[in-house]
Amino acid sequence: MTKIETVNQLLGDRALETDGVGKAYAPANVALCKYWGKRDAALNLPVTSSLSISLGDIGTTTEVRLIDGADRISLNGERVAVDQAFATRLTGFLDFFRPTAGRGFAVDTVNTVPTAAGVASSASGYAAIVLALDDLFGWGLTRRELSILARLGSGSASRSVYDGFVKWHRGEAADGMDSFAERLDVDWPELRVGLVVVADSAKPIGSSEAMARTVATSTFYQQWGSRSETDLVALEGAVAARDFRVLGEIAESNALAMHAMMLTAIPPILYWTIGTVDTLHKIWALRETGTPVYATIDAGPNVKVLFEAENAGSVEKAFPGVRIVAPCGSEEYRD
Amino acid sequence: MTKIETVNQLLGDRALETDGVGKAYAPANVALCKYWGKRDAALNLPVTSSLSISLGDIGTTTEVRLIDGADRISLNGERVAVDQAFATRLTGFLDFFRPTAGRGFAVDTVNTVPTAAGVASSASGYAAIVLALDDLFGWGLTRRELSILARLGSGSASRSVYDGFVKWHRGEAADGMDSFAERLDVDWPELRVGLVVVADSAKPIGSSEAMARTVATSTFYQQWGSRSETDLVALEGAVAARDFRVLGEIAESNALAMHAMMLTAIPPILYWTIGTVDTLHKIWALRETGTPVYATIDAGPNVKVLFEAENAGSVEKAFPGVRIVAPCGSEEYRD
Repeated sequence: MTKIETVNQLLGDRALETDGVGKAYAPANVALCKYWGKRDAALNLPVTSSLSISLGDIGTTTEVRLIDGADRISLNGERVAVDQAFATRLTGFLDFFRPTAGRGFAVDTVNTVPTAAGVASSASGYAAIVLALDDLFGWGLTRRELSILARLGSGSASRSVYDGFVKWHRGEAADGMDSFAERLDVDWPELRVGLVVVADSAKPIGSSEAMARTVATSTFYQQWGSRSETDLVALEGAVAARDFRVLGEIAESNALAMHAMMLTAIPPILYWTIGTVDTLHKIWALRETGTPVYATIDAGPNVKVLFEAENAGSVEKAFPGVRIVAPCGSEEYRD
Repeated sequence: MTKIETVNQLLGDRALETDGVGKAYAPANVALCKYWGKRDAALNLPVTSSLSISLGDIGTTTEVRLIDGADRISLNGERVAVDQAFATRLTGFLDFFRPTAGRGFAVDTVNTVPTAAGVASSASGYAAIVLALDDLFGWGLTRRELSILARLGSGSASRSVYDGFVKWHRGEAADGMDSFAERLDVDWPELRVGLVVVADSAKPIGSSEAMARTVATSTFYQQWGSRSETDLVALEGAVAARDFRVLGEIAESNALAMHAMMLTAIPPILYWTIGTVDTLHKIWALRETGTPVYATIDAGPNVKVLFEAENAGSVEKAFPGVRIVAPCGSEEYRD
């Protein structure tokens, strides 16, 4: 199965021509149970299922139109040169949806992710472009189908077509048609995520490369499948019971396990900078004095602090400038 | 089996009375294949075998005499109060060797470990006191037997009764009589260890407690036994072939695996401070520019840099103030 075959299967004989405009917003997301490792790199099929919370108004708004000639892409109001990585990747993805070879897309993308918020924009970005294309062409695809399309752009984008708590099923099928995300029917208005941006001095490697190296060389990766399954069950239980301490403990340990696996890849991968370690120690110090705050970290140096509304004051005091989000604060983007 | 039974078995009817003086030196050591986890906490029997290099003139010199009354302990020329942890632990150990309850030991211990060298002194300390007691009483025990006695004081002390490359066999016996260290017959005069001392701001927990928590709660600990065995075989091969790159790669990954397991303990354990992460990134940056340097880290924030003599200049430049040791530079302490 290839990406284009997946697209053809989902779109069937739907129209790929219009003179209208499509527009959509998709929130960024942070995984409590991480996606780390692909069972199919071409289709972005994951080794494990994952569970995330959306980041509310931190995300991507994208507007798209059909034009004659080459794609014209702008990011945050600035034209992006065709040879930039952002443009080549997006143009490659748009190829699946081009009515004819001679047509292009005008894409205006605005990340409401603050410039230095330390949140990856590819998840919300590929979710937003897929939602915008659905709006443009009037496909009327289900959120599940849109989740699969977004996954082809970026694995974690499959989760960004929803808000709130989202579960991405790994699926079993080789064609990936059962590997989509769905929204969990949970409200947790008190839940908060604090984005702590730290000094970034480490030289990063891309997450796809980091995943592949981890899978290929880390001894501990052998444990990841069963470990992740156990964590997911525990997290779903904690979410259903709104048990914050269990949610925080499992989410933190799951994130640390992902970084632990990277650390034991060869050569080792360490996304952490001195600011990451400093933030972790601060979070644990807060916890030792009785404030239930937990950390999660994605494939980068920045730390996301998990806590409940009543402890917002302590978190703001410990991390001046922290950007706080309520993942269940919005009623949008539900099927 | 208890510690005192082990002592009685080894000493037999050897004398525990003398009016002489015993004196000995033992080097500190740093493990290339780590000791992490006890299969018997009372006897300090390890889950895995381990392999270390000695730190030459960084270590402990101890002088011991019998006296009437309570123990009188001095450390680096200063009298240590009986209720200090250093004294209570040492006095508890000396109880095994007391001729009668009314006799004490006068112990003068000098750590040549520079005050802030970031090297644990319990390994060299317990090796030195055992060697000094052997000298005092004229037991004439073999190094193997002394290694077992030192193990009762501190697990890694079993390795500090030798210099150079040392292997501590985990052993299989419940009484631990086959869990001793021995010196590998290897010279590697070009091998160097650089001690990088970093700012210590993290709150440490003792290594015994950290080990116990890792064994009890880290998912990844299940992999440690087989992982460690594989690393040990590879390291012994690298040592025999004097293949520095393989030695460095395996030693670094083994150390990172130990810290990765701690990170996934619940609650997580992170000995690293911002200085640790900074030093790791510097080491990897050096390696990326072609200088073969590798890291190892024990249960603390400081980093030991592994390299060969020809790269001493680069290491000194990258880490001003680094203390450099030649593990195979001395001919002392061989059986």
